[in-house]
Amino acid sequence: MAFDIEHHLAVFRRGADELLVESELAAKLQRGHPLRIKEGFDPTRPDLHLGHTVQFNKLRQLQDLGHHVIFLIGDFTGLIGDPTGRNVTRPALSPEEIAVNAKTYTDQVFLILDRDRTEVAFNSKWLSALGADGMIRLAARYTVARMLERDDFAKRYEGGQPIAIHEFLYPLAQGYDSVALKADVELGGTDQKFNLLVGRELQRHYGQEPQCILTLPLLEGLDGVNKMSKSLDNYVGITDPPNDMFGKLMSISDDLMWRYYELLSFRPMSEVAALKRECAEGRNPRDAKVALAQEIIARFHSPAAAAHALAEFESRFRDGALPESMPEVTLQTAGAGLAVPQLAKQAGIVESTSEALRLIQQRGLRIDGEVVADKARVVPPGTTVVIQAGKRKFARVTVR
Amino acid sequence: MAFDIEHHLAVFRRGADELLVESELAAKLQRGHPLRIKEGFDPTRPDLHLGHTVQFNKLRQLQDLGHHVIFLIGDFTGLIGDPTGRNVTRPALSPEEIAVNAKTYTDQVFLILDRDRTEVAFNSKWLSALGADGMIRLAARYTVARMLERDDFAKRYEGGQPIAIHEFLYPLAQGYDSVALKADVELGGTDQKFNLLVGRELQRHYGQEPQCILTLPLLEGLDGVNKMSKSLDNYVGITDPPNDMFGKLMSISDDLMWRYYELLSFRPMSEVAALKRECAEGRNPRDAKVALAQEIIARFHSPAAAAHALAEFESRFRDGALPESMPEVTLQTAGAGLAVPQLAKQAGIVESTSEALRLIQQRGLRIDGEVVADKARVVPPGTTVVIQAGKRKFARVTVR
Repeated sequence: MAFDIEHHLAVFRRGADELLVESELAAKLQRGHPLRIKEGFDPTRPDLHLGHTVQFNKLRQLQDLGHHVIFLIGDFTGLIGDPTGRNVTRPALSPEEIAVNAKTYTDQVFLILDRDRTEVAFNSKWLSALGADGMIRLAARYTVARMLERDDFAKRYEGGQPIAIHEFLYPLAQGYDSVALKADVELGGTDQKFNLLVGRELQRHYGQEPQCILTLPLLEGLDGVNKMSKSLDNYVGITDPPNDMFGKLMSISDDLMWRYYELLSFRPMSEVAALKRECAEGRNPRDAKVALAQEIIARFHSPAAAAHALAEFESRFRDGALPESMPEVTLQTAGAGLAVPQLAKQAGIVESTSEALRLIQQRGLRIDGEVVADKARVVPPGTTVVIQAGKRKFARVTVR
Repeated sequence: MAFDIEHHLAVFRRGADELLVESELAAKLQRGHPLRIKEGFDPTRPDLHLGHTVQFNKLRQLQDLGHHVIFLIGDFTGLIGDPTGRNVTRPALSPEEIAVNAKTYTDQVFLILDRDRTEVAFNSKWLSALGADGMIRLAARYTVARMLERDDFAKRYEGGQPIAIHEFLYPLAQGYDSVALKADVELGGTDQKFNLLVGRELQRHYGQEPQCILTLPLLEGLDGVNKMSKSLDNYVGITDPPNDMFGKLMSISDDLMWRYYELLSFRPMSEVAALKRECAEGRNPRDAKVALAQEIIARFHSPAAAAHALAEFESRFRDGALPESMPEVTLQTAGAGLAVPQLAKQAGIVESTSEALRLIQQRGLRIDGEVVADKARVVPPGTTVVIQAGKRKFARVTVR
């Protein structure tokens, strides 16, 4: 089998931060064998958003070219957790917890990756087998000075921030994963570059051809400025309902839309370029945004759900109508009814009564389509109302 | 059982470089239990000289006070060797080689230590059991910055000399030995101070009372200047024949003799002080030197051998007589005889003909008691002569 090398390289390069070393990659492709492409992930129980999918999208595109993808779960370090106890977000996990997390992870990831062409691997298999002596032999393969060249280590060392010695072992363990898997290419975030390079070096030590490395950028969130993250509330979760996805994606700037096309769409860059040209020549960018939102909703839900979300979005925003369906909630009270902020919270359309009070002040909370002005208003028992927070959150509530 | 704490502390202190922390040691002794006293040794196949025995002497003296001595063989690191391959003197050893070396080592060491009150331990038992994950957890217990405070690391780091990362793991492994053995005290050379302190810290981490540490100086060699070592040829080997030991020890300076009394003799310091006073008041220090040599020869051979060596030494040097016995050598020639330098070399009393030539120049080579002045002198076939290099090396040689 001969690969169309220029085409493969273009897929590798799309949206990439760095691809090292391209000539080596071309040489690997020249041989015509599917490449072994590895990426490692923590065995956390993820709740993925589109930011995370940048990596998976690339893996999927490479799968579609015929390459072999290894989805590596770093269970070895997960079993250890953070031994210093300083990082409470890294508790030691049991093998059972890791298995559950891995299942949750892959269930989400296989919305993107081709399950039949993905090898799921666990690095405890070879790292535990190293033993204490093997870990020492591995540690002998790298020097303290070179490890201290890693950006964050250098900064912490110079700033007098402690670096525990085991932190020097993790990049080596990750590099050894590449040896064990005989990886041809390793993918990672830009912050992973140093670790990916360690893998190259260790492979050389073990007499293997060094892997190529491909780093991908962090995706900007809906604000177009900060990286997409839960804590900044600028994200689109991959399990978000279709309507939410649609509304959020329609809210982004045109510039950000093109960035998302590069990193989130599977449409060939030639098509994206054509679309961009059309918009530059006068076509409404809203059409391109709708197409992007449709593609993404179809991926995580279905084409029908995407079409439905579009129709509903259009009817709601064009005609001011209520959505076709919304959550139905029945709230039991002691018989005195419920104040609106409580009602909004218990209906699940706000996180807290203080958020509800803020919305009331900003004229953003409605009952049966009318703005609530009186924060002390009570909905009496035996009533059913439609309560609405902002533009997209609705619930039909019966108070008993 | 109550210890005479002041007496025990005095034994600890004798000849010591540093004892940390004396108040903690006093508190441990106060409890009246035998202390667990640990020292680690490489599983090399040693050929011990008196310099090495400084450590063992201290252990023996502490045994005699009722303490429990753990002779720890560092087989874990011996099995690994130097993984970088830079240090050719540290090859990886097989378990069989380590067993043989340990036997050779302890056979020599039990000339000093009380075999019945010595626990011989091997650290692979608990270090191998750590596994790769345990090694990482251990590495998490110490920081890079603190490890780089160790003198030799600091110098190498600043001097741009590579430090392989596994070198940071060895002090931790050694410290973990103290945890596994619940050591109360660890002994070592002055160069071990940092590592011994790591043991204190790790014990604290593991909820143990930290060990006290005792460092002992390196013994000066016969020249009184450099440390005793094979390569400087200023040593007394513990398997040297009694006559050699005697001659060598009689050659040291008076100052060095008092140093040796402190570090090599088991006589109480009060007796040594008395002896020193007598010499200061006019007694011939030679008597003290003879007594020291006798004690050491008795330890490694027997009291009879010590007495015999003294008698022979006295007869040789007082009366100019030949030793009672000497090697008998027969040398075959092509019929032309042998030049004296060749003869001396083949008889084994010099290392090389150039050493023989130097001795001739210094009037230090004799045949049948007479100084050889002519370096070209030939001993003809059919002759038997006594050849003598310096004061103590003799051979009876028959040339054929």
